Amino acid sequence: MAAAPVWSVDPRTGKQREQVAVEATRQEVDQAVRSAHAARHSLADRAARAAFLRTAADRLDEAAAHVIEAADAETALGPGRLTGELARTTYQLRSFADIVDEGAFLDVIISHADDTQTPPWPDLRRYKVPLGVVAVYAASNFPLAFSVPGGDTASALAAGCPVVVKVHPDHPATSELCAAALHRAAEETGIAPDVVTLVHGFDAGVELVGHPLVAAAGFTGSVRGGRALFDAAAARPRPIPFHGELGSLNPVVITEAAAAERAEQIATGLAGSMTLGVGQFCTKPGFVLAPASAAGDRLVKTLTHEVSEVEAGILLDHRMREAFVTGVTERAALPGVEAPVTPGSGGEHTVGAGFLTVDAERLTGEGAHDILLEECFGPVTVVARYRSDDEIEAVLARLPGNLTATVHLATAEETDPAGRGAALLTALTPLAGRVLVNAWPTGVAVAPAQQHGGPYPATTSTSTSVGATAIERWLRPVSYQGTPAALLPPELRDDNPLGLPRRIGPQRG
Amino acid sequence: MAAAPVWSVDPRTGKQREQVAVEATRQEVDQAVRSAHAARHSLADRAARAAFLRTAADRLDEAAAHVIEAADAETALGPGRLTGELARTTYQLRSFADIVDEGAFLDVIISHADDTQTPPWPDLRRYKVPLGVVAVYAASNFPLAFSVPGGDTASALAAGCPVVVKVHPDHPATSELCAAALHRAAEETGIAPDVVTLVHGFDAGVELVGHPLVAAAGFTGSVRGGRALFDAAAARPRPIPFHGELGSLNPVVITEAAAAERAEQIATGLAGSMTLGVGQFCTKPGFVLAPASAAGDRLVKTLTHEVSEVEAGILLDHRMREAFVTGVTERAALPGVEAPVTPGSGGEHTVGAGFLTVDAERLTGEGAHDILLEECFGPVTVVARYRSDDEIEAVLARLPGNLTATVHLATAEETDPAGRGAALLTALTPLAGRVLVNAWPTGVAVAPAQQHGGPYPATTSTSTSVGATAIERWLRPVSYQGTPAALLPPELRDDNPLGLPRRIGPQRG
Repeated sequence: MAAAPVWSVDPRTGKQREQVAVEATRQEVDQAVRSAHAARHSLADRAARAAFLRTAADRLDEAAAHVIEAADAETALGPGRLTGELARTTYQLRSFADIVDEGAFLDVIISHADDTQTPPWPDLRRYKVPLGVVAVYAASNFPLAFSVPGGDTASALAAGCPVVVKVHPDHPATSELCAAALHRAAEETGIAPDVVTLVHGFDAGVELVGHPLVAAAGFTGSVRGGRALFDAAAARPRPIPFHGELGSLNPVVITEAAAAERAEQIATGLAGSMTLGVGQFCTKPGFVLAPASAAGDRLVKTLTHEVSEVEAGILLDHRMREAFVTGVTERAALPGVEAPVTPGSGGEHTVGAGFLTVDAERLTGEGAHDILLEECFGPVTVVARYRSDDEIEAVLARLPGNLTATVHLATAEETDPAGRGAALLTALTPLAGRVLVNAWPTGVAVAPAQQHGGPYPATTSTSTSVGATAIERWLRPVSYQGTPAALLPPELRDDNPLGLPRRIGPQRG
Repeated sequence: MAAAPVWSVDPRTGKQREQVAVEATRQEVDQAVRSAHAARHSLADRAARAAFLRTAADRLDEAAAHVIEAADAETALGPGRLTGELARTTYQLRSFADIVDEGAFLDVIISHADDTQTPPWPDLRRYKVPLGVVAVYAASNFPLAFSVPGGDTASALAAGCPVVVKVHPDHPATSELCAAALHRAAEETGIAPDVVTLVHGFDAGVELVGHPLVAAAGFTGSVRGGRALFDAAAARPRPIPFHGELGSLNPVVITEAAAAERAEQIATGLAGSMTLGVGQFCTKPGFVLAPASAAGDRLVKTLTHEVSEVEAGILLDHRMREAFVTGVTERAALPGVEAPVTPGSGGEHTVGAGFLTVDAERLTGEGAHDILLEECFGPVTVVARYRSDDEIEAVLARLPGNLTATVHLATAEETDPAGRGAALLTALTPLAGRVLVNAWPTGVAVAPAQQHGGPYPATTSTSTSVGATAIERWLRPVSYQGTPAALLPPELRDDNPLGLPRRIGPQRG
């Protein structure tokens, strides 16, 4: 059987641009994993891998024109957004280089021998070691920052783990360009290029998660695809950690006082956030609880105006366009659902932004519109109008896990620690990994305190895929007991030759 | 149908001692989980839960005579061992109280707003929150330290999570006594007693891991039972973290130089470690690579003498005794396997310790004796005689994941960082969570640098079940963005009113 071709497709026309590669066979996936595994030792030296990450960022920056041109041609995300995404991507690579240099991620803990403890302590020295080959499943909606050179790859390499990337079919040409930049950087810094290896094709992705030498996986994508791979990872003879970011509704609660104070400003912010990047962010606010009041009416009026001004946009591929049109049509047809601006087909290849409204009471009890509480990828949100605080709580209780949860409060009057704002923060915390006040969830800072990961289905683990602590996903602790100084890894020696931050345990437990 | 009775059984006679409880029905499991969930708020205050953990330790110490008597009657582990186990258990509870007070486990990271980053940072403040109700599956072989008041319970409560303990059928009376002590401590310290709830029965355990309000699970037991529960946890509509410690061979490598230096001393240590507690430790050295040399012969000779002196012992229950007798008989019957001291039935209720020897070459290639590389619970070990370093590597490559891996080196001559000792440490590290040099793996210190958890099947996650970092299993990070100071949890406020150790992020990434 001939190898299946992998085409780069222009979503603006639906036409094939060029054949980029062929789908990997089972043998080729096996070869890719074995090559990556064999290359792992070249990541052992921390200084070398930090240099590799920085050089990779430099090479990507140098290739910016080509990379952005290819990415725009394949994704229609536009040069402006893609320029920003590349800057974020290279910043992320350099950040992980800094994290590797600093060494806190090694989580060194030393407990000296101590006969006064119960039972007595031997000399124990613990740090973290890389898990092994990481399978990275690239995202459709971030051809750079969550794909070949993205956060999963950067954090895994920083941890000392080679990666095999399952390329997303929406941007194979961009992926190959990025891989070439990473490979050049590897060669320049004495790292084996096979520490980053690509495979194309759906079947290759399934094969990859089951490969005996794959030690962990990172995924960004749909609930359906992510869950299937999660299940496969768990069903292996030797299960592996599967860190998947699957789907998120990202609820927003707007209090009556906030709406009364600034309905128009909130509506304008919401319109911008929900339609940013044609509504294709995993942090898009897809569900809004707004008061069924005059202030709430003002909010809906401004939202109607703002969203109707948004130009039709191009989704990442035609399958997504179909899913969006079907999804919004199904939702708009529900009893009691209205569409102040009808989302849907905007032309042969485009979609129009819109939003739906519904009484919050339709979302609880018998015959509730459960589908309105599921993510619909694209430029649409659902505004549920509530009549009481109890109705807010009742709806929140029905929400699945989310990446983010947002509350808009009146600037001054709702910041009493014993008041409504505090109660809402408490109610939103169990629902999400990131809780925002008077802000919008799109835009995810690459910062140490970031948490981009929330309760299932937002994430299949308790980890984050953005920020410094994303590196924790690819490590496991090892403790050395009674080991002669000369045989200890330098990270664990008493003289701390590498100058690492460490915890030396006077503390018991 | 009448409720199934739960009996306390004397393993010295196989006779029922008393009926302790009845097996929980599905409705009773649901009630136990709901009660625990409803009680979770009472653990919110860190000072209160630290006081609870310390008072629990005090009440258990006060109840020592009763608890140890019951535990000995049910497990035959003996008052000496059980006195030590109780001391370890209460030390562990107090250690986790210290950890709660100190607060580093909250992992507070603050990234102040910073427009110079790419993209700009909003104000982000991250810490860890409890996951919710934790299901604890108690171990057979530690009626205290890995059961009702054990490490999983102590670390979960310390994290702020209520627990529902699935009691082990080998010690139901001990479990109820311990629960009563914990409940007294809860009442005294203003904690809702339902933060620790017990259920009995196999079916109750299966029900528990599937309950929608259970947020995570900790397990110590067999590969078969643990894997079934792990699979159930992964197959839930909302999968949950399952931290299971399943089974471990705990390989030991003895170099020729070490044997030449001190064969008799090593053999004596091995005999003690493998027969400690009638070989019922999860860290029992169950597989030993010893040289096929004159020094190795001396080691086997001393081991023969030492093991033949060990008195017959009582295993935890009759099912285990049968599994041991069957397991050692099957192994001893393999071609090329010899039994210098034959392990097996030592009488109607007892078992005799023993060990098997085999040429290491029987463990690789076509028709290899794979079963010798599986854990056999009880007082037996397998000594494989190797002829070359290559043979050691070939056998190590076939081993599953382990809690521990040990190497015995010549005291002075094998500590060259470029020599054989270093090479063996490198080879053993991928196989285990704890690597020991010139020591024995039985005895697990409750220390910050401890790692009691290793690659599958030793553990189903990358976590430890012993030591300070065991608390990490029951937490997830939440980040607050743009939150007014008055609404922030005190842990995250700029003035740090709780005096917590925190990371404030100048570092990027």
